[in-house]
Amino acid sequence: MHINKAIPDAIVSSYLGGQWYAPDDGATAIKSAVTGEVIAHAGHNACDADLILNYAKKVGGPELRSLTFHDRAKLLKHLALYLSEHTAALTELAFHSGATRSDSKIDIDGGIATLFVFASKGRREMPDETIFPDGDMEQLSRKGTFVGQHVYTSRPGVAVHINAFNFPVWGMLEKLAPTILSGMPAIIKPATATSYITEACFRLIVDSGILPPGSVQLIAGRTHTLTDHLTPQDVVTFTGSAQTAGIIRNSLNVSDLTIPFTAEQDSLNATLLGSDIEPDTVDFEIFVNEVVKEMTTKAGQKCTAIRRIMAPPAISRHLIEAINAKLADLTIGDPSLDSTDMGALVSDRQRNDVLAVSQQIEKHAANVSHPKITETLRDLPGAYLCPILYWCEDPDHASDIHQLEAFGPVATVMPYRNMTHAFELLNRGQGSLVASIVTHDPELAREAVLHSAPWHGRLYFNNHLSSAEATGHGSPMPHMVHGGPGRAGGGEELGGVRAVKHYMQRTALQGPPDLLQP
Amino acid sequence: MHINKAIPDAIVSSYLGGQWYAPDDGATAIKSAVTGEVIAHAGHNACDADLILNYAKKVGGPELRSLTFHDRAKLLKHLALYLSEHTAALTELAFHSGATRSDSKIDIDGGIATLFVFASKGRREMPDETIFPDGDMEQLSRKGTFVGQHVYTSRPGVAVHINAFNFPVWGMLEKLAPTILSGMPAIIKPATATSYITEACFRLIVDSGILPPGSVQLIAGRTHTLTDHLTPQDVVTFTGSAQTAGIIRNSLNVSDLTIPFTAEQDSLNATLLGSDIEPDTVDFEIFVNEVVKEMTTKAGQKCTAIRRIMAPPAISRHLIEAINAKLADLTIGDPSLDSTDMGALVSDRQRNDVLAVSQQIEKHAANVSHPKITETLRDLPGAYLCPILYWCEDPDHASDIHQLEAFGPVATVMPYRNMTHAFELLNRGQGSLVASIVTHDPELAREAVLHSAPWHGRLYFNNHLSSAEATGHGSPMPHMVHGGPGRAGGGEELGGVRAVKHYMQRTALQGPPDLLQP
Repeated sequence: MHINKAIPDAIVSSYLGGQWYAPDDGATAIKSAVTGEVIAHAGHNACDADLILNYAKKVGGPELRSLTFHDRAKLLKHLALYLSEHTAALTELAFHSGATRSDSKIDIDGGIATLFVFASKGRREMPDETIFPDGDMEQLSRKGTFVGQHVYTSRPGVAVHINAFNFPVWGMLEKLAPTILSGMPAIIKPATATSYITEACFRLIVDSGILPPGSVQLIAGRTHTLTDHLTPQDVVTFTGSAQTAGIIRNSLNVSDLTIPFTAEQDSLNATLLGSDIEPDTVDFEIFVNEVVKEMTTKAGQKCTAIRRIMAPPAISRHLIEAINAKLADLTIGDPSLDSTDMGALVSDRQRNDVLAVSQQIEKHAANVSHPKITETLRDLPGAYLCPILYWCEDPDHASDIHQLEAFGPVATVMPYRNMTHAFELLNRGQGSLVASIVTHDPELAREAVLHSAPWHGRLYFNNHLSSAEATGHGSPMPHMVHGGPGRAGGGEELGGVRAVKHYMQRTALQGPPDLLQP
Repeated sequence: MHINKAIPDAIVSSYLGGQWYAPDDGATAIKSAVTGEVIAHAGHNACDADLILNYAKKVGGPELRSLTFHDRAKLLKHLALYLSEHTAALTELAFHSGATRSDSKIDIDGGIATLFVFASKGRREMPDETIFPDGDMEQLSRKGTFVGQHVYTSRPGVAVHINAFNFPVWGMLEKLAPTILSGMPAIIKPATATSYITEACFRLIVDSGILPPGSVQLIAGRTHTLTDHLTPQDVVTFTGSAQTAGIIRNSLNVSDLTIPFTAEQDSLNATLLGSDIEPDTVDFEIFVNEVVKEMTTKAGQKCTAIRRIMAPPAISRHLIEAINAKLADLTIGDPSLDSTDMGALVSDRQRNDVLAVSQQIEKHAANVSHPKITETLRDLPGAYLCPILYWCEDPDHASDIHQLEAFGPVATVMPYRNMTHAFELLNRGQGSLVASIVTHDPELAREAVLHSAPWHGRLYFNNHLSSAEATGHGSPMPHMVHGGPGRAGGGEELGGVRAVKHYMQRTALQGPPDLLQP
């Protein structure tokens, strides 16, 4: 069996200083997640830091800063409209990363939707100006001859976005939208494994001619010494593993000059079945569906996917059966087929990583996966992996299940004694991107906020009154912040204009009122 | 000559876990800045991290979080009122740090005023609640059954405040006010050189009984391994040199868990005489007065003090003469005398540091100090230092004058060719706490914001219409943010409720509307 499409031979080029650079002898071969065949080459030896930074700072920055927030918002809208007409080709390409059509909807359509939301926020919540006021005027004097006003201004630097493999399009666009709106040019470094999809989307952006010259550059392959040349007016963002984030963070700290760094790391996200929910109710079903969706969408390769599932002990066995029943019904296989529910992991290496972490988890938890699931994968080539469900009876004494992330279709069910214990377990992840709770109890919801919100970037509540319109445990919305404390990286993205501010500098202006009118 | 007061023999104790710990054989002797005699001992070997962190997190945190923002604001107001009655003793003690009566007004009265402002902001700009909403509800669905709301909640950790020697009271209180308002307990680590003043003020806080048990602790002496025991829910703030900030920043980065760190480093702050200002006008006089005030207040030992002075070349000579004339008129000496305009540096070591940096500056700039100034100090003991004024004719090719900070009464005048060049020079500090401009020209002010705001935490404009009520180039106001990018540490303090948010976690709540009502 092999993927139902022609094998591409993608040349993943970089776009630096306004020029395309094809792969050379420094290139890496990229294999299809589905067939195992080489489908692309990415990377080259040409990565001249001065060339790249000058193009961004001397061409792109001044161009973008000469536009108002409304002008920039319009660019984002035009870009979103343009990309909307080219999603089919990107989806075709993405099959080779193991992504199904609905996986790519999240990545590609989700990325374009993010552009639309930022375009709209920029028009509605920012002024037709280049200076963004923050808060009201502060009366610093009795007679009012000396006052204060906070403003955000555009940093005369560049944003370096180091992205993860799992969302080759959304990952680029969700960071690019606030960056462009802030007036900052961007340098995008996609993860090599899926860089052929990012490059195809990036090429559309360049071909569209919508963004001013110098606004965007793409580095396929290694960044070499680029980060050593950054200054405090630049910004580095990173999405990926905690380990790599630590390496970058330390490399930026070598000088006295603090370079802003935002990390969004994977995390041990959890979901909680409220103590008020009975089995075999619509709410119970909603809970099961969210778990299954999070385990299988993108084959579990989402930073926000559910890794830990908490339920009252009396219900746990029943819950495991309900999850397994749904998982057993899914079709796993060729992502290009409409009948497929779950595709492949991005690479053999990724599958091996997930299996290695699963073995660690198995020291503390019993494998309770449905036997039927394993069978369905026996004859498939490519980086397929069946969903694995664990049951951990004593989550208090099993640190590994709260710390080790298997970045695939793997989750662990565990019991909680009471709500205080449940919140403690939620927080044992040491900082997560998201936790979700199915409940109808406003008091439980409020207690969850007080006890667990400080440990999470997002708290998601759901029940049968909201489920028809709920956006999903694992879907970051452009309106709401995405990121989390501690283990999740301590960073923040999205959240409408909140994200734009991360690329600008807040300054306190003080003086006579007539000089502070922007 | 010696200080006009009795010599104290201060025992600088720590307050840990609700107990006082007197100095032991691990103590450091502290000398008077004025007489050179030993006046205090600080530090001890007892610094049990578990004891300290448990007292903060298991006693102080829950106590504070059980109060609403309004309750906590009232505590700050009571504390401010209580401390207001005890400023005289603190001022007496501070003479030994070289601080004049008016220096201590900034430190002590300024610190208390900060408490009052935060008390008022907490009452007026925060709810009588424990959850702080951020922004409006976001409509995430058509029918409105699923919505979003951002909130800030109190972190269940502790704030560790590592403070600088120059503001022993303000430095403690300006950080304590937002910390308490956020619902977080604090551990305060004063700089040893002036820890006897901080301890005296801290003792008043404890004696007042106003703050709940566990809210505050004081570490006189070294913190030993305290920071190794911190978690992502804790916060570390630091005020001091760029070098020490770098050491702490790296020590917090050893694990995967990101611990928030806010640094406020000294910086190469600048002031600019607008091209529209003629010599011998009221505005010119205002400019000269600000320069002299910044050079001599606290003997120039302010993170915000003016280090670089920019003026049109045609006026520069005249400006140097005007500054020197004012400096020559000042009385430098015993800080306890009302007739004294400028006291001593905090220690001999500090004076030696300033002189060493001045020698570096002198390689690029001519010493143009008035000869009379040097004479007045010839016979004084203690850590006195006369103001030193430099003239740098070619600031474009003298990196050191934009990078090296002499943390004392030292500043360098330099010419600018046009406003673009002037803004470039302002920004050469690579990130500063504050830059000030004397001008009447709104267009110049706007250009300054666009070109220089990204490089500065604060931009301060002044002229004869505002000068009567202006708060001073070097005075951080509690209403306005304090901090700066790059060289200044990349941190942010103060700014009203903006500062409170730094001690809280922002979380995106999503769900059915009835579950998101706090």
